[in-house]
Amino acid sequence: MSDVTQAAPQAPTQPVRKPRVMSGMRVTGRLHIGHYFGALQNWVQLQDEYECFFGAMDWHGMTTAYKSPKEIAPWTREMIAEFIAWGVDPEKCTLFVQSQIPEHIELFMIFANITPMGWLERVNTWKDAVEEMKATDTHNLGRFAYPVLQAADIAIYRAQKVPVGADQVSHLEISREIVRRFNHLYKAKLPEMNPMLTEIPLVTGLDGRKMSKSYGNTLYLTEDSEKDLKKKVNLMVTDPARVRREDVGEPSKCSVYGYHKLYSTAEDLQWVEAGCRSAGIGCGDCKARLSQNLEKISAGPREKKKELLNNPTQLDSIIAAGCAKARKEAQKTLDIVRSSMKWPEK
Amino acid sequence: MSDVTQAAPQAPTQPVRKPRVMSGMRVTGRLHIGHYFGALQNWVQLQDEYECFFGAMDWHGMTTAYKSPKEIAPWTREMIAEFIAWGVDPEKCTLFVQSQIPEHIELFMIFANITPMGWLERVNTWKDAVEEMKATDTHNLGRFAYPVLQAADIAIYRAQKVPVGADQVSHLEISREIVRRFNHLYKAKLPEMNPMLTEIPLVTGLDGRKMSKSYGNTLYLTEDSEKDLKKKVNLMVTDPARVRREDVGEPSKCSVYGYHKLYSTAEDLQWVEAGCRSAGIGCGDCKARLSQNLEKISAGPREKKKELLNNPTQLDSIIAAGCAKARKEAQKTLDIVRSSMKWPEK
Repeated sequence: MSDVTQAAPQAPTQPVRKPRVMSGMRVTGRLHIGHYFGALQNWVQLQDEYECFFGAMDWHGMTTAYKSPKEIAPWTREMIAEFIAWGVDPEKCTLFVQSQIPEHIELFMIFANITPMGWLERVNTWKDAVEEMKATDTHNLGRFAYPVLQAADIAIYRAQKVPVGADQVSHLEISREIVRRFNHLYKAKLPEMNPMLTEIPLVTGLDGRKMSKSYGNTLYLTEDSEKDLKKKVNLMVTDPARVRREDVGEPSKCSVYGYHKLYSTAEDLQWVEAGCRSAGIGCGDCKARLSQNLEKISAGPREKKKELLNNPTQLDSIIAAGCAKARKEAQKTLDIVRSSMKWPEK
Repeated sequence: MSDVTQAAPQAPTQPVRKPRVMSGMRVTGRLHIGHYFGALQNWVQLQDEYECFFGAMDWHGMTTAYKSPKEIAPWTREMIAEFIAWGVDPEKCTLFVQSQIPEHIELFMIFANITPMGWLERVNTWKDAVEEMKATDTHNLGRFAYPVLQAADIAIYRAQKVPVGADQVSHLEISREIVRRFNHLYKAKLPEMNPMLTEIPLVTGLDGRKMSKSYGNTLYLTEDSEKDLKKKVNLMVTDPARVRREDVGEPSKCSVYGYHKLYSTAEDLQWVEAGCRSAGIGCGDCKARLSQNLEKISAGPREKKKELLNNPTQLDSIIAAGCAKARKEAQKTLDIVRSSMKWPEK
């Protein structure tokens, strides 16, 4: 106070802000390995480089699971436990449950009023699935409105990047169109979300078909015990041309090999390829190695998830803290949204 | 405590619960006399006989006014002031602003997942207005989803009765269908809403056409001053066959007479009828009497509304109290809804 000649203290240098990423997983039941290789594995890497918001999207789950909503809450809880068990770190990112952040649906309502029906009617996953949806009783407003909620899910965190596989890039286009229209109408500056192309390995079901709960050909991420894993691997379909032990096989025609590519080391892969093509190893040997490798990767997360679910207070407080962090950001966005629109909260 | 032989105190007799009514007005601008004779007048009567929830529906206003959202907040405020000025008593009923009760949109989201697209596509006001909506840029998801939000608006207060004119009975049908489907799916018991048929007098515009802001033929409820009223009445179209003062006229062909039926006493009506048909009075006399009668009814509410708007703190606290009361009830409904679905809040 007395020494006025003293230099003014320098403003602390602001850390450079990491770009913001948003990604969510629809709550539809237990996670299988497609969820891991399609998203989770990638999230674990992203959390170090980006400011990440990862969500368990239970409103989206309800669009198809509305007939059994009592499953939604336990599935959601388990999903968060699973995220953490596989390495998503609540200290590094913001983990939230969609329905706990009411700002998602408030922004959805605002977006709904500026989204032309034509944009939604033209969405491929809608157009192409009409008959299937009628058969499953899901040809409902909630499912039709899904892309608008998705736009709100991303925009509510002002995320710039959304990790997607190449086949999903077009899904993001409508989110971007909605945000553009919002910015245009209200002279606002919500960031447009851009796809962050992610190479997603093809994960087929145990029988070589698409992995799907209804085909009974899934490998669950942690729900399957070591014994279950072994049993499932033993039932896997191998190269049909390799009938006897002494026949040679072709790995690219074998689903077991596809899984080795996901779970095994380069060294093991070579051992499989050479052994199969020369009949040096039998299918039993190959499967046994896969089971071991699966177990090696799954044992830790399986244990961690059990531990989390056995400590409900701890898990609850992790979820509550994540939701509080997410909500703060969502409220900030909604303030920006409402002030751009000049439609104040009260 | 000591005298155990004393008779147990009788439980206080519960007052018989009045049936619950919900009605709302879409926020679209200043209220004109169509709003009064179409709804407000009726609300004032209902509030004594029923447990009433009356709302300023600003989310619904946004479906068409999304390009000028900055008008919504002041219009909403004025609307509540207008309700009170015309006799809706915040002590007798629950007066709320839709967007302040987030449970409306939460129930909307739940209903959206169980509402088949076909139900909405078949709504007449949607089907018939597609071209108009495309022209006005309102062919949007928000407007399409409107009947589902309306169902939520009513169900969130578990209202049994909704005052409607004969031409609106079908609008309520879809609300009832949604609630029935909800009750069926979740073995719930939300009350089905029933129309409460209300005779709504035909209020035409000053020129005899439909009253509409865009025709410039409206009489505002309080926005028009005494001078404005006089001026507007003087411009009203009379029986075109009565050209000169001495010609006789036919009241049923005169818009001034239509307004006399709304605003004047039986005695005045007789004076108008006889005087017009005998050329005993001139159109000027007839209009002067109407202006007086209009002013007689409007002066009080105009003053009251001004007073309310000049005391923002008082008005704010009335609105806040109404919303708090509404919200409590809405939360109770949502608890019931979620527990029927077995989808707990957390």
